[in-house]
Amino acid sequence: MMNKVIETILNHRSVRKFEDRPLTDEQIRLIVECAQSASTSSYIQAYSIIGVKNPETKKKLAELAGNQDYVEKSGHLFVFCADLHRHELIGEMEDKDVTVSLESTEKFMVALIDAALAAQNAALAAESMGLGICYIGGIRNNLEDVSALLKVPDRVIPLFAITVGYPAVDTGKKPRLPLHHVYHEEEYEQNEEIYKQGLIEYNQIVSKYYEKRTNGVRKDTWTGQMARTLSNPVRMYMKQFVERKGYNLK
Amino acid sequence: MMNKVIETILNHRSVRKFEDRPLTDEQIRLIVECAQSASTSSYIQAYSIIGVKNPETKKKLAELAGNQDYVEKSGHLFVFCADLHRHELIGEMEDKDVTVSLESTEKFMVALIDAALAAQNAALAAESMGLGICYIGGIRNNLEDVSALLKVPDRVIPLFAITVGYPAVDTGKKPRLPLHHVYHEEEYEQNEEIYKQGLIEYNQIVSKYYEKRTNGVRKDTWTGQMARTLSNPVRMYMKQFVERKGYNLK
Repeated sequence: MMNKVIETILNHRSVRKFEDRPLTDEQIRLIVECAQSASTSSYIQAYSIIGVKNPETKKKLAELAGNQDYVEKSGHLFVFCADLHRHELIGEMEDKDVTVSLESTEKFMVALIDAALAAQNAALAAESMGLGICYIGGIRNNLEDVSALLKVPDRVIPLFAITVGYPAVDTGKKPRLPLHHVYHEEEYEQNEEIYKQGLIEYNQIVSKYYEKRTNGVRKDTWTGQMARTLSNPVRMYMKQFVERKGYNLK
Repeated sequence: MMNKVIETILNHRSVRKFEDRPLTDEQIRLIVECAQSASTSSYIQAYSIIGVKNPETKKKLAELAGNQDYVEKSGHLFVFCADLHRHELIGEMEDKDVTVSLESTEKFMVALIDAALAAQNAALAAESMGLGICYIGGIRNNLEDVSALLKVPDRVIPLFAITVGYPAVDTGKKPRLPLHHVYHEEEYEQNEEIYKQGLIEYNQIVSKYYEKRTNGVRKDTWTGQMARTLSNPVRMYMKQFVERKGYNLK
């Protein structure tokens, strides 16, 4: 059953160091076409993509994302946005009141899911061309400034970027949760002991991975890492921000 | 630059009629592994997948999704869920307070995006095996009953399903928005007239598509369809529902 598509998918790893070589316009175009071919909820197409080539803009975005220099030094940057702006214009064009819909939590979810489905198509298209990619959630550190920089109107929220380019270093694959832990048959696992056992099993795999990658220096587990990260709440301005942009209000 | 991955992506169409033939366990396993290979925000893996084979459960889900019989009559059903339940358990295991993080709008977004990235990998893996797929957002019509049926705990929200199987009918590709309308260079298009022109251009493409597909019977435009749909708000219980599940509160 193995084929080129599945090989490409299973071979994914995040690339954080790129050659100094831009993508061609043809590559960019094909990647965007692939993004657009993804499924979209009831044909709504509630997202936009902003492509960034300008080194100044990339530099600023890299800083805003927490000094991630692989945002600046890559072949191209695609910023994926939730976008209900065009649907607001459509309301005007067609003289219909669409505001309640646009401001619903349901449509907030639709826009996020639509954007992510499109992004994953773009990521795989790029990887299939021999390019490497990394998702950049760091732009959510400061969406006010990112929005101003990219001049997005209300009802548009930059969600994440994908930095794309020719890989300069080969990186390893990070081990995922055990399949039976993520995949439930018929109904969600009710036995909490079995569930916790899956996490303990996974901790051993993750520990070995970090030890191997750091020659024994990094001692860590997945649950330890998650507990540390999650006990430090981040981006707590988000609720107010998305509401101000006209989302998630009703 | 064309290759098997890009061909598979560009060839996507939703399939709504399947042969009566289940997926094998090996197919299911490979599809889930592909889902798991997607990027995940800071390694959080904030989703789960529930696979449904039981005809009774599929029948109930088909009803809950608005009598979509291709939910019932397919090779397999994958329900994708936002999942921060395991992270709540991790908080207990590691004795850390993770509640504020889990209840943030930021983590609601992370869980939705994580689940959608995984789902799109699953969809493409299935399509690469010659299977057809359709995303089912209809399960969000009634998430209370869907959640009870699949016995999901708090901090787990079924988001959508993918129905997968052997296509019984070849369907057409629906035309997407013009590329230059979805893809902005450097910054969001500031000229509203150019922006509206893109929509008008697209209306002509969509009209022709519907006319051709229905032998001239269906006269419709994209903006008309969107305005009709969006002037009828749906799933307005969603905000309260996700809050009750422990999401999007802060």
